[in-house]
Amino acid sequence: MAEVAYVLSRMMMPDDANGLGNVHGGEVLKLMEEAGHIVATRHCNAGNYNNSCSPRVAVLARVEQMDFLKPMFISEVAHVTAEITYVSQQSIEVKINVYAENILKNDQRFTNRGILWYVAVKAVASTEYAVSTVPPLTYKDPQDEEDGRKRFEFQKRDRQASKELYKLYESGQPLVNDWNGSGIVADSTEKYTVKRSQSTLIHSILPSDCYSSKFSTGGSVMKLMDTAGALSAIRHSKTPCVTASIDAINFHHPMRQSNVITISGRVTFTSAKSMEVEVIVITEDLSTGKKHFSCSAFFNFVSVDSSGRVLPVPPLVLKTDSEKKRFESGKQRYSARKQRRLSRETTKN
Amino acid sequence: MAEVAYVLSRMMMPDDANGLGNVHGGEVLKLMEEAGHIVATRHCNAGNYNNSCSPRVAVLARVEQMDFLKPMFISEVAHVTAEITYVSQQSIEVKINVYAENILKNDQRFTNRGILWYVAVKAVASTEYAVSTVPPLTYKDPQDEEDGRKRFEFQKRDRQASKELYKLYESGQPLVNDWNGSGIVADSTEKYTVKRSQSTLIHSILPSDCYSSKFSTGGSVMKLMDTAGALSAIRHSKTPCVTASIDAINFHHPMRQSNVITISGRVTFTSAKSMEVEVIVITEDLSTGKKHFSCSAFFNFVSVDSSGRVLPVPPLVLKTDSEKKRFESGKQRYSARKQRRLSRETTKN
Amino acid sequence: MAEVAYVLSRMMMPDDANGLGNVHGGEVLKLMEEAGHIVATRHCNAGNYNNSCSPRVAVLARVEQMDFLKPMFISEVAHVTAEITYVSQQSIEVKINVYAENILKNDQRFTNRGILWYVAVKAVASTEYAVSTVPPLTYKDPQDEEDGRKRFEFQKRDRQASKELYKLYESGQPLVNDWNGSGIVADSTEKYTVKRSQSTLIHSILPSDCYSSKFSTGGSVMKLMDTAGALSAIRHSKTPCVTASIDAINFHHPMRQSNVITISGRVTFTSAKSMEVEVIVITEDLSTGKKHFSCSAFFNFVSVDSSGRVLPVPPLVLKTDSEKKRFESGKQRYSARKQRRLSRETTKN
Repeated sequence: MAEVAYVLSRMMMPDDANGLGNVHGGEVLKLMEEAGHIVATRHCNAGNYNNSCSPRVAVLARVEQMDFLKPMFISEVAHVTAEITYVSQQSIEVKINVYAENILKNDQRFTNRGILWYVAVKAVASTEYAVSTVPPLTYKDPQDEEDGRKRFEFQKRDRQASKELYKLYESGQPLVNDWNGSGIVADSTEKYTVKRSQSTLIHSILPSDCYSSKFSTGGSVMKLMDTAGALSAIRHSKTPCVTASIDAINFHHPMRQSNVITISGRVTFTSAKSMEVEVIVITEDLSTGKKHFSCSAFFNFVSVDSSGRVLPVPPLVLKTDSEKKRFESGKQRYSARKQRRLSRETTKN
Repeated sequence: MAEVAYVLSRMMMPDDANGLGNVHGGEVLKLMEEAGHIVATRHCNAGNYNNSCSPRVAVLARVEQMDFLKPMFISEVAHVTAEITYVSQQSIEVKINVYAENILKNDQRFTNRGILWYVAVKAVASTEYAVSTVPPLTYKDPQDEEDGRKRFEFQKRDRQASKELYKLYESGQPLVNDWNGSGIVADSTEKYTVKRSQSTLIHSILPSDCYSSKFSTGGSVMKLMDTAGALSAIRHSKTPCVTASIDAINFHHPMRQSNVITISGRVTFTSAKSMEVEVIVITEDLSTGKKHFSCSAFFNFVSVDSSGRVLPVPPLVLKTDSEKKRFESGKQRYSARKQRRLSRETTKN
Repeated sequence: MAEVAYVLSRMMMPDDANGLGNVHGGEVLKLMEEAGHIVATRHCNAGNYNNSCSPRVAVLARVEQMDFLKPMFISEVAHVTAEITYVSQQSIEVKINVYAENILKNDQRFTNRGILWYVAVKAVASTEYAVSTVPPLTYKDPQDEEDGRKRFEFQKRDRQASKELYKLYESGQPLVNDWNGSGIVADSTEKYTVKRSQSTLIHSILPSDCYSSKFSTGGSVMKLMDTAGALSAIRHSKTPCVTASIDAINFHHPMRQSNVITISGRVTFTSAKSMEVEVIVITEDLSTGKKHFSCSAFFNFVSVDSSGRVLPVPPLVLKTDSEKKRFESGKQRYSARKQRRLSRETTKN
């Protein structure tokens, strides 16, 4: 395995801020994805693999569950490391760490870690791409390869399971009957209901959202997902909200320049101090009119006051059977997340 | 007619601000144009019209007179609806509404409405585009089509009339003798004169200003026009200024990636509480050196103090005959605008 | 010589700010380079030179030493003039002036001047470019041509001399043994050492950093160089810092869309009131894995308090022989700069 080195380092500027004046969680996701894209693309073309004259590019396929450990502030320098930890025939696993540095105080903090999976594609015509094989990885220890294979199998199963919504949508069924897609709920007497929390962002993918392959950067989509999620959380709590963690995201349909994407969020579960928001992304190709399900994910938010102190969250008011069912699933995910955090802390000690 | 739904929804971020800290009027224009571009391009390619293998893109041809009804603030969510209301053989009329939502207060306001006309173009070579026909629209009521045709004929006449400046410029005549094109007037004793108010912005069109067709987004040009207009208004009033309304804009020559555009403004008329600024746009192709007249428009501004209260405007000092003539035309446009506003209010009651 | 006119005019917006809230020095460099690119590209294609069907584009080759005379503030309008002053067979010298205008106060200041050299390239295949000849310039006075030729010869020699680092790197030698490339120094007891001041930014070149030729704009690279330099200066002084001047920059290897560039800085010399930072740029092509030395330069900074008053600078602690050697060279450059400034002031009187 190659030595871990900084892959990206960038100063956080005023337009990277969220409403509280700190660095937008979505900007951190963009940095992580860009770093992953760089090391994965680098690996795909190492030693001019296979003498291919058409270079490969890495496209984001999946993000593993991730916690936002600490906030980052404007005018700090973000440093990102990225290390390839496993390679299958067509996919690449990248482990990413983010550090924030206050250059005035010579102070640095570990703020984020994440696991991202990429697939390699290569151009087969002027605008067509096909999935390509990936050069093998040399492991320091056979055990590393064995552990990697287990993570690969796990994500493959989880990815398959996550295709449920994708298949529903592609088969022409309405994704969710009671999801109106509108950002404004006319009836303001609706308080703390799921309907009240619904948010939609709609964005047309511009050249500045894309790599030169004209695929949207995974990061710019995740930033929009984070923003849509935060809108739902803020609508529910009526306070500023910060991203605490993200459940795994699987990308099922590519998003490309000129596509219009619709990002919708709704609160699915609340605990005493957190809100879970389901976010889904639908992609439309304007030149054919066809729409596809691109991805969905659960984002977890905490409500804070203006100085960043955590506030209690009003309980979600459940009206329909499907809302109650989703709340129960949310409760299970909440317990699983808690379990995972505890076991990680135990491992460290 | 298709059901009206949100076409764009976007959170207003710190870099969308103007000098007062509110959302820049030009950003609102960009949102409206992007929404119009999406629904018009969608319509052009509906059902893979005409089995054309080359998809069509909608390019902004004209904006009807529009009022800025209410300001929008940073961290609000802008929601934009767009509805196709008439289609001729080659043009598409889109009606656009903008709403601002304060998600903390569950408060929403109607802030802008506008009518935009698009033409469809399709690629005929790698960088050449030709105007294309447009699929027909199905109307709910024959009267809707008849009303649309009247609006179409009206805009056609008005568009023709607006070609005067275009023809003057293309025939090689200097557009305006006394327009020095400079933003800095050396003689600071010039107070409240037309010359003193002259402003010029010069911008080279970058990939991030363009759709993937490499045509500039109409919105980024209108944002620059709004900025140049505001500079002239501020030069005259010496106070912050906000855009109150825009007269119809006709686009006569396309603006494309790598072109350099020169946007010039000058105050043409002042009433007790408003300033009219004429803004023109000249486009230069660096690879051939050729220059063309792209468009012109009248922007209307009010002078405000730092808390947004309307202030009286110093009267414009007129020095030359052509300045006096333009002031008289401005007075007529001012009355026409007032009339239009009154009749609209009467219609509503 | 053509008449000098404004080539760019742009309002400074909130996202143009540095940490002090003034306009980022790097944004000024971007404006200057864009203006130079425009007049040089315009000249290359004048009269459809040589009947070439493939238009030429101007690529930044060198920046002469430049002083930042005065700061610029957000909401001021920047006006940039650019004049071609000499043309050799393949290069173009452009003289650039920058003015800041406060439109509320009718106040304008001369803030920057610079000399930029461009070479013309033209496409020879879909992504390949070759250096092209340039149409001749007509001089008002034969003396102007003669003076230009002297500047051309001087820059050619200086450019050649600056190739030392380039050749070292391209021959596979580590550029500098003691440059660890990391932005975070774990050992916080290191104070005022060269090692403590080391900074690295890593950036992947996106479409919005490029001209349509897909070459990076020289300005976006210089802005990153200025930022990396400022980081080193701030790490050393623990105060805000502003750019005072830049020594000549020679560009030896082009930077293109999708390349990853690593920009590293370290303090090389300190006087009582200034810091000299050496900045180098390494370019990596992800599709081949090849790395090249693109450019290096010395940036000079002063330490200021939050109201912009100049502060004394802590002396640099020198630990290795090569650090001492570089400090001595820095001292010589410092004296040369002082001499140059004095002689310029004498010339003016």
